[in-house]
Amino acid sequence: MPKPGRLFGLGVGPGDPELITLKALRLLQAAPVVAYHAAKGKKGNALAIVERYLDEKQLLVPLIYPVTTEILPAHMNYDAIVSDFYGEITGLLRTHLDAGTDVAVIAEGDPFFYGSFMYIHDRLAEDYETEVVPGVCSILGGAAVLGAPLVYRNQTLTVLSGVLSAQDLKTRLAATEAAAIMKLGKNLAKVRGVIDDLGLLDRALYVERATMEAQRIIPLAEVDPESSPYFSLILVPGEKWAGSAG
Amino acid sequence: MPKPGRLFGLGVGPGDPELITLKALRLLQAAPVVAYHAAKGKKGNALAIVERYLDEKQLLVPLIYPVTTEILPAHMNYDAIVSDFYGEITGLLRTHLDAGTDVAVIAEGDPFFYGSFMYIHDRLAEDYETEVVPGVCSILGGAAVLGAPLVYRNQTLTVLSGVLSAQDLKTRLAATEAAAIMKLGKNLAKVRGVIDDLGLLDRALYVERATMEAQRIIPLAEVDPESSPYFSLILVPGEKWAGSAG
Ligand SMILES: C[S@@+](CC[C@H](N)C(=O)[O-])C[C@H]1O[C@@H](n2cnc3c(N)ncnc32)[C@H](O)[C@@H]1O
Ligand SMILES: C[S@@+](CC[C@H](N)C(=O)[O-])C[C@H]1O[C@@H](n2cnc3c(N)ncnc32)[C@H](O)[C@@H]1O
Repeated sequence: MPKPGRLFGLGVGPGDPELITLKALRLLQAAPVVAYHAAKGKKGNALAIVERYLDEKQLLVPLIYPVTTEILPAHMNYDAIVSDFYGEITGLLRTHLDAGTDVAVIAEGDPFFYGSFMYIHDRLAEDYETEVVPGVCSILGGAAVLGAPLVYRNQTLTVLSGVLSAQDLKTRLAATEAAAIMKLGKNLAKVRGVIDDLGLLDRALYVERATMEAQRIIPLAEVDPESSPYFSLILVPGEKWAGSAG
Repeated sequence: MPKPGRLFGLGVGPGDPELITLKALRLLQAAPVVAYHAAKGKKGNALAIVERYLDEKQLLVPLIYPVTTEILPAHMNYDAIVSDFYGEITGLLRTHLDAGTDVAVIAEGDPFFYGSFMYIHDRLAEDYETEVVPGVCSILGGAAVLGAPLVYRNQTLTVLSGVLSAQDLKTRLAATEAAAIMKLGKNLAKVRGVIDDLGLLDRALYVERATMEAQRIIPLAEVDPESSPYFSLILVPGEKWAGSAG
């Protein structure tokens, strides 16, 4: 039996291919097998980011989501479907690892920050040598392109999912100094309503596809809730710290 | 009068020099002037990370903190000292920018995530063409080396400063699913006490100098509060999502 292969979880950054780290690029290019998540019939965002760095000798393994991640009702069936899905794809990755082949799973942004790689890690890290390379996460990619210092000094930063209920979002937003809200899409209208109720509309910033070619920055008040894509986020930067008033 | 230079805020990642992005490295190496923060008599962490990438034709400009950032009492004098400091150093950077020279300010981790660059940005971004390159932040560098998926699905992540009061930390920690606590050092004992009170000690992870050569991972319960360095953090990762139970 060959020595088992190693599992790599590589953060590839929020979109701009130049925002990958030297380390992730090195390990990506050394990997004989590169696995990537994608929705059915789509290329997958992480793959689109790193495609230019791959060569034809590398085997590409698509991991196709059985349901779209945008629709996340909290019922059993969904959990079961997702659990089956991860069981299946980790089975597939195991065949490569058991054959002694290193496998790199690429992750948009950072692998451990709301990334699908976490579910693979939970199932394989105990059985195989595993290394995770952190990446630039979407909220910091967003802050950079918005020119928005995100969190000062001893302020608290709260990262929220737009899937939460309006009441839950309201309580959590009211209790923090700075916030980032992800997973907008069809949650946009609800999230914006809460921000408005809290009087935060003039502090909130919105960006779609930050650092990607299709990046779009528009005032939150003007976003059409019907067309807000999954790859968008809202930042409520902390207020400038007194000591920083020049 | 020459065309003014451009200001760059470059995230250089949490410590491992290979965790810089391709973009930050490119802009760093192209910059005639590289400014870096440091404590008096110290090299500065960001400089230590990128030193190997610089050449002798680049002008290094140290920005020496007038007080150590570890001691942060919230009184007027401190604010005034810090405000004076940023006024002074941005004056210095302005002379380079006004002479038409590009200036890169390097930032450990990400520039807009509790970074000193934010105070420079607040004073200069309106007057000069400015670009910020996001970086891998310390908490994601920490999660990677700890092998700890940080936040699942629709969980909330709260990032806290160890400078907060025990009561404040307790309220905020009790209200979140996942947390990162920064700025430990002499706040370690207080922070650990709160984590213990909340029954979170078995979920909390501690790392010093994540991704750096001197990295140290020890169980939080065993950390000597007298020797916990400023460059350390605690993570309380979110509990594995049900759908991820294989
Ligand atoms: C499943 S999470 C993955 C997060 C990713 N692992 C990271 O490190 O940022 C997907 C959410 O990330 C956010 N996102 C990811 N990339 C983005 C980008 N380039 N611009 C705006 N939002 C983005 C969106 O809010 C999206 O709903
Ligand atoms: C002023 S903040 C700077 C944060 C930085 N801009 C970032 O993106 O992470 C300093 C705090 O960051 C944390 N930190 C920074 N680098 C670290 C590392 N390599 N390991 C552990 N903690 C680190 C510590 O908690 C420290 O007190």
